[in-house]
Amino acid sequence: MKTVRNAVGRDIPVELEGRKLKPYKGLFRNPPPKRKAGGYFGYVKPGDKKLLASLEDAIHSCKLKNGMTVSFHHHLRNGDYVTNLVMNTIADLGFKNITVAPSALFPVHEPLVDLIDQGVIHSIEGSANGPVGDAISHGRMKGLSILRSHGGRVRAIESGELKIDIAFVAAPSADDQGNSNGMFGKSACGSLGYAVADSIHARKVVIITDNLVPYPCTPISISADYVDHVVEIPCIGDNQKIVSGTTMIATDPQKLSIAQNALDLMVHTGIFRNGMSFQAGAGGISLATTKFLGELLKEKKYVACFIDGGVTEHVVDIYKNGNCAKILNGQSFDVKSIEDLISNPDHVEITPNYYANPWNKGSLVNILDAVVLGATEADIDFNINVNTHSDGRLLHGIGGHQDTAVGAKLSMMMMPIYRKKNAIIRDRVTTVTTPYQAVDAIVTDIGVAINPERKDLLKALKGSPMKVYDIKEFRDMAYAQTGTPAEPEYKDRIVSIVQFRDGTVLDTIRQVKD
Amino acid sequence: MKTVRNAVGRDIPVELEGRKLKPYKGLFRNPPPKRKAGGYFGYVKPGDKKLLASLEDAIHSCKLKNGMTVSFHHHLRNGDYVTNLVMNTIADLGFKNITVAPSALFPVHEPLVDLIDQGVIHSIEGSANGPVGDAISHGRMKGLSILRSHGGRVRAIESGELKIDIAFVAAPSADDQGNSNGMFGKSACGSLGYAVADSIHARKVVIITDNLVPYPCTPISISADYVDHVVEIPCIGDNQKIVSGTTMIATDPQKLSIAQNALDLMVHTGIFRNGMSFQAGAGGISLATTKFLGELLKEKKYVACFIDGGVTEHVVDIYKNGNCAKILNGQSFDVKSIEDLISNPDHVEITPNYYANPWNKGSLVNILDAVVLGATEADIDFNINVNTHSDGRLLHGIGGHQDTAVGAKLSMMMMPIYRKKNAIIRDRVTTVTTPYQAVDAIVTDIGVAINPERKDLLKALKGSPMKVYDIKEFRDMAYAQTGTPAEPEYKDRIVSIVQFRDGTVLDTIRQVKD
Repeated sequence: MKTVRNAVGRDIPVELEGRKLKPYKGLFRNPPPKRKAGGYFGYVKPGDKKLLASLEDAIHSCKLKNGMTVSFHHHLRNGDYVTNLVMNTIADLGFKNITVAPSALFPVHEPLVDLIDQGVIHSIEGSANGPVGDAISHGRMKGLSILRSHGGRVRAIESGELKIDIAFVAAPSADDQGNSNGMFGKSACGSLGYAVADSIHARKVVIITDNLVPYPCTPISISADYVDHVVEIPCIGDNQKIVSGTTMIATDPQKLSIAQNALDLMVHTGIFRNGMSFQAGAGGISLATTKFLGELLKEKKYVACFIDGGVTEHVVDIYKNGNCAKILNGQSFDVKSIEDLISNPDHVEITPNYYANPWNKGSLVNILDAVVLGATEADIDFNINVNTHSDGRLLHGIGGHQDTAVGAKLSMMMMPIYRKKNAIIRDRVTTVTTPYQAVDAIVTDIGVAINPERKDLLKALKGSPMKVYDIKEFRDMAYAQTGTPAEPEYKDRIVSIVQFRDGTVLDTIRQVKD
Repeated sequence: MKTVRNAVGRDIPVELEGRKLKPYKGLFRNPPPKRKAGGYFGYVKPGDKKLLASLEDAIHSCKLKNGMTVSFHHHLRNGDYVTNLVMNTIADLGFKNITVAPSALFPVHEPLVDLIDQGVIHSIEGSANGPVGDAISHGRMKGLSILRSHGGRVRAIESGELKIDIAFVAAPSADDQGNSNGMFGKSACGSLGYAVADSIHARKVVIITDNLVPYPCTPISISADYVDHVVEIPCIGDNQKIVSGTTMIATDPQKLSIAQNALDLMVHTGIFRNGMSFQAGAGGISLATTKFLGELLKEKKYVACFIDGGVTEHVVDIYKNGNCAKILNGQSFDVKSIEDLISNPDHVEITPNYYANPWNKGSLVNILDAVVLGATEADIDFNINVNTHSDGRLLHGIGGHQDTAVGAKLSMMMMPIYRKKNAIIRDRVTTVTTPYQAVDAIVTDIGVAINPERKDLLKALKGSPMKVYDIKEFRDMAYAQTGTPAEPEYKDRIVSIVQFRDGTVLDTIRQVKD
C-alpha cells in the first residue's frame, strides 16, 4: 500500500477502498473549493400532505436503495431511540450496504452491531463511540469508518464529500409541515443544531416526532421548507439519559486539581479577563472547570462575553449570576439548560456550521478565548488522542475537539499523567485526533506543559506561581508508574480514518488482534 | 421577434436580450431542477478581521467588477439609506453596468434614476417601484427589468438564475463577525427575512450597520458564518418611514366597504372558522380587513392558528386579545410589531423562502386559508395587474401577490370597480401580474365576483346574503362611469419582464410613449 507521511508523522495511504486520501499538511493548508454543493429542491403544492402513517411509508417515499447514506443527530445522546428504530426498520425492509452518518453514537446504539454483522450497515461516517466503535475495531464492519469533528462533518456535508440521501431527524416537537424544535415535549433535548446541516443538504428529510403540535411549531430550529415527510411515533427517546457518565461533574480530588490548574492557567496567561469567552464541555473535569470559572468571574465581578457549548446548569448559573452576557447552545446537557434556552433571550441555539466549520466565512471557534478538552492520551509532541484507548480500540468520537483546539486562543487538554497501569502522557499517541499544531497546553493535576510553539504563553507564565513542566517530565513520571507502554497489536486492515476538520487525514486506525 | 402565446394569452418573446424566456403554462407546470445552486465557501482563520473601515474597502475587498450584480433588502422600505449610499459609492468608484437586485425599491430610491442615466446601473432584477419604475417605463435603463414575486426571487437565487455577486445588508444591529438582526438599534426594522437568501447564496456578503454591538449579536437573523465583511456607518435609515402611504389603515367608506365584504366573504365561504390562518398586508384596505377580522374572531371567541405578513399593531392586537396562536413575521411595518417580535416567543421571524418559494419542500402559502391582496386592475378573465398603472407605467412590484394567490384557499383581490376616470375592472389588464388560475375572488365595495373555476365557493355562497356578481357586470358598471379604456401607447421596446413565481413569463412591459 502506497503511503505518504503527513504533518504529524503518520503514514497515510494514498488511496483506500476507492477513496483518494489527502495527507494532513498542517493547519489551514487545505483551502475549500469555491462553491458548496447545492441542496435539493422540492415541489410541494397546496393540499399535499407531508405527514405519513409510518416510518416504512417514509422510507419508501424517499426511495431508499441499497448502498445509500442515512443520517442521524445525537442530541438525545444515550437516550436516543430513533437511530435504532430507523435502522431496524431499514433492516426489516431488506435493505443492505447502508452507510450511516450519525453526528455521534452512544452505548444505546449497540443494536447497530447486529446490523453491521448482517451487512445492513456497510460503513459509518460519523463518530462511532462505545460498542459500535469496538465492533469496528474488531473488523466486523465491511466498509470504512470515517471519523470527523463537528466542524469537519458540516464541511463534508456542505462540500458534497458526505452525500446524505435521507436525514432522519428525531424531533421533540414538530408540526405536520416539518417545523421542529427540541425545546418542548416529553423528549425535549434543547438544541437541534446538529441536524440543521443534514436538513439543508440531504436529498430527503424525514422528521420523526413523538409530539405533533399544531402548525406552526415554534421556535423553528428545523424549517419546514427543508422537510419532505413527518412521521409520528410513540416515543423518540428518554431525555433523562442525555445526562450520562460524560455529563456529571467531577468530584474526585485528582480531577478537581486538573480543573483548578486549568483555571489558574487562564488566570496567569491573561486569558481570564472581563469580557472573555469560554467553551464549556460535558466531561466531569470540564464541568468542574466551568464551575470554578463561574466562581472566579463572580468574585472579580467580571462578565464573560459568551459561554458556548455543551450547556449545563453550571453555565446557566454563571449567566444568572450576571457573569456571562450570552449563552450559545450547540447541545443541551440537562433540563435546566433546556428551560433556560426556552425562556432566556440571551441563550441562543447554534449550529455546528456556525460554531466550527473550517470552510465557512468564519466560525465561533475562531474567536474563542479558552476551551477545556479531554484526552485519552497526549504525546511528547503535543498530539492528542481522544478516539482510541491505548489498546487500539476505537471507543470515542472527535466532537468539537479539533475545531476548538485550532480556534481557541488557549486550548487546554485535561488529563492525569497516567491512569492505573496506563501512561496517558507518552512518547507517541496511539491515534492522532488533534494535531500538535493546534494544542496549546496539557493540564494535569500536578501542573501544566505548554506547547513550545506558544512562546507567548511561556513568557506570560514566567514568574507566575503556575507549575510549568516540560512534557517529557510528565512522560517520565508516567512511565515510572506504568512502565513503557507497549504498542497495541494490530492486524493489517485499516478500519477507520481520522480526518482533520479540513478533510485531510491525520491518522488511520487498524483492526485490533482479537 | 418570435413569440409564443402563454397560458394567460400574452405573446412572449422566445428570446430577449440573450435570455431564453419560458412562457407561463399554468400553475405548477414548471418543475424545479433537482438541485439548488451551491453557496460560497469562505476561509476565515482565527485573528482575521471582518470589520472594515469603509464601504469602499468592502467593495474593493469583494472584488466588484463592471457588469456584476449587487443586492439589497427592503425592510427599511421608504426609510432605507443604504441602497442609495452603496450605489452612489459604486458610482464614485467608477463602476458601470451593474445589475441591482433589490427585494423592493421605494420613492426614497429616486437617486438611482441618475445612476441609470449614467450607465452605472445597467439593469434591475427586483421590484422597481415608484420613480425608478417610471424611469424604466420611459426607456431610460439600458438593460432589462425583471420583476419577480417574493417567492420567485428566492427561487431565482436558489436556482442560480439570479446570481448575486455582493449582497449588501442594512442591519439595525450587528457584531464584528456579521451576526445581525433588525430588532434593536435606532434603525430597528424588525424582521430581516428578505436578506437571508441573499446572505446564504451571494458570493460575498457585506453587513452595513449603524449599531455595532459586542459579539454575539442575538437573535441571529443573518448568521456570521455567511458574512464576509462588516462596515459601520452613521445611519442606515429612518425607521419612522417604514410606515408609508401603503401602511396606513383605510378610513374612507368605500375602502371600508371593500374590507367588510372581504370579511363577509370569508364568513360565508366557511373560511372564517376557529383555527383559520390569514395573511395580513400593508395596504389600507388590507389593514382594515385585518382589524375587522380581529373583531370577529374576538366576538366568536375563535383563535386563528396563525397570522402572517406584513405585521402591524393590528395583528399584534389580535394576538394579545387571545385570538391568534402565532404570528409569523416576514416584514415588520410598525414599532409595535417590532416590540412584539422581540418580546413575544409566539411571534417569529420568517424568510421568503419559508413563506413563498414555489420550489422548496413546502412553503407557508400552501397552507394559508385566506389572503387579501390589492390590485391596480382586474380583468374579466380574473387576471390581476399590480405592476403597471393603466397608462402602462411600471410603478409597483409584485411582492407576495402571486405566491399567496396561488397558495391560499381563498385569495381575495380588493379593489373599487373604477377610480376617477379609470376602469379598474376591465376587459383586459394592462399587465398580467397574477394569472387568473390563482385568483379566487374579486372583492369590491358593492359585492364580489367569484372565479367560475371555484365552483365550491359559488356553491357555498348560494343562499348567503353575499352579493355575488358576474365579473362582466363589474366591468359594465365601470365602463358606464369611465368609458371603454384606451390601450396605453407604447414603443416597441420591451423594458420589463413579469415573471411568474416559477420563473416562466406572464407578461412583458413595453416602453411608454413620452
